[in-house]
Amino acid sequence: MRTVWLNGEFLPESEAKVPVFDRGLLFGQGVYEVTPVIDGHFCNWPHHAARLARSMALARIADDTDWPPILNGLIARNGLTEGRIYLQVTGGAPADRDFLSPTSPVPATRFAFTQAAAVVDQPKVQEGMRVILHPEGRWALRSAKTTQLLYAVLAKELAREAGADDAWLVDNGMITEGTSANAHIIDSRGVLVSHPVEHGVLPGISRLCALPLAREMGLEVEERPFSVEELFAAREAFISSATTVVMPVVEVDGRKIGQGRPGPQTLELRRRYIERLRNA
Amino acid sequence: MRTVWLNGEFLPESEAKVPVFDRGLLFGQGVYEVTPVIDGHFCNWPHHAARLARSMALARIADDTDWPPILNGLIARNGLTEGRIYLQVTGGAPADRDFLSPTSPVPATRFAFTQAAAVVDQPKVQEGMRVILHPEGRWALRSAKTTQLLYAVLAKELAREAGADDAWLVDNGMITEGTSANAHIIDSRGVLVSHPVEHGVLPGISRLCALPLAREMGLEVEERPFSVEELFAAREAFISSATTVVMPVVEVDGRKIGQGRPGPQTLELRRRYIERLRNA
Repeated sequence: MRTVWLNGEFLPESEAKVPVFDRGLLFGQGVYEVTPVIDGHFCNWPHHAARLARSMALARIADDTDWPPILNGLIARNGLTEGRIYLQVTGGAPADRDFLSPTSPVPATRFAFTQAAAVVDQPKVQEGMRVILHPEGRWALRSAKTTQLLYAVLAKELAREAGADDAWLVDNGMITEGTSANAHIIDSRGVLVSHPVEHGVLPGISRLCALPLAREMGLEVEERPFSVEELFAAREAFISSATTVVMPVVEVDGRKIGQGRPGPQTLELRRRYIERLRNA
Repeated sequence: MRTVWLNGEFLPESEAKVPVFDRGLLFGQGVYEVTPVIDGHFCNWPHHAARLARSMALARIADDTDWPPILNGLIARNGLTEGRIYLQVTGGAPADRDFLSPTSPVPATRFAFTQAAAVVDQPKVQEGMRVILHPEGRWALRSAKTTQLLYAVLAKELAREAGADDAWLVDNGMITEGTSANAHIIDSRGVLVSHPVEHGVLPGISRLCALPLAREMGLEVEERPFSVEELFAAREAFISSATTVVMPVVEVDGRKIGQGRPGPQTLELRRRYIERLRNA
């Protein structure tokens, strides 16, 4: 049985429970981070910590938990060598439900858990992902990493029903991102195009770390939205996220992207980024 | 200490807890209802039950809880004569976090609690509410009553900071609704104008029940969006929700609506609707 951390305690996972009055449960007032774990080490913490602070500010959650010892404690207790750590902070559990937070603040609810998973050797890398397109319908504040995730859940269910691996969201003919990953193409000119993170997509940490590596590979990088038409004309497509890392997309709405096989630039970028994660 | 109902049990409120793996907490996959309680009876149940079923279908939550005995049990155990009952259903608590729901379904998490509150005699009725306008930024599926409520929480906090009682949301110059209530005006011609519920606002039960009473009063009712300009030119403005029932709005962004006092038609509609709730 996994050990989970909740509000200062390491607990058996079956004992980690929060009150029904938690504002995360009643109002979706929660923010989270997912860090990859490779070789028993969690990666990119300064970036995750900075984004967590921004998400908390937006969601009006105050907390100053010192996370690294907790994450190390979870890795040690659960013997995790590869996978991810999930952590969440909510608006806490006041005595009663009210849209307005209590004038005497309650402590934030904080919890974290590990998930063992293949990060480096994922079979899907060889095969490539198939995605569907789905209308963008999320809220305006999606540059924060909040638990307002029902739309993403529903889109991913539709993808599963269509026999696909994920959905990419389309806003006015432009791709925003995947349901839980940033979306990128290497366009018909060979330029890596990636939606800017200031407007309407999550500032992905893998995206942040991988784009400079793409430049090192000699790729030109344009941070701008790309259209559905550009996507279908692209040489390669891929996602980036904490534990898919960099993952090729080979088919969109049943149409092949490029040769319909994982693209060489994508695979090279994945290789370099994993190398960087190992050595960070 | 209140008694709360959770997954089949009546429990002291401090013992009502859900696993951190609950999909309501991790993904905001939750739906809810709030029914007014007057004279020890919960009101409008058939309407709430129908909307709950629609919300669950949209959020992909399956559950067939027989709620009325539970609500009566809570009222009896807590000696509630006036206030509200809140009930919530989530996607349940699988063994681990995954956007995709488990292929072997887990039971929904279900809980309910009472809140004592004045419904009939609320001081704010005499004074009238002050609201601020705020850009609409919620997700596309807001005709379902889900726990994707962080935007509403943030807007209500801004209202509090502005010394107001609530925020009305503005989409392309048109009012959609309040953060937790439908928004209505009696316009400069004396016509009651109310945003249609098919597009982008919650199908409020109080709205559903009160509009026919407005027609009985001789008011013409138009179900269409109204603009900020129409609002500022209106004779009266009001909200409707489960426990504010029908509540006058007298000031918007610091500008008086009509005479800056609760409107006579609004107060008469409130009187009739409370009478109907008492006798339903």
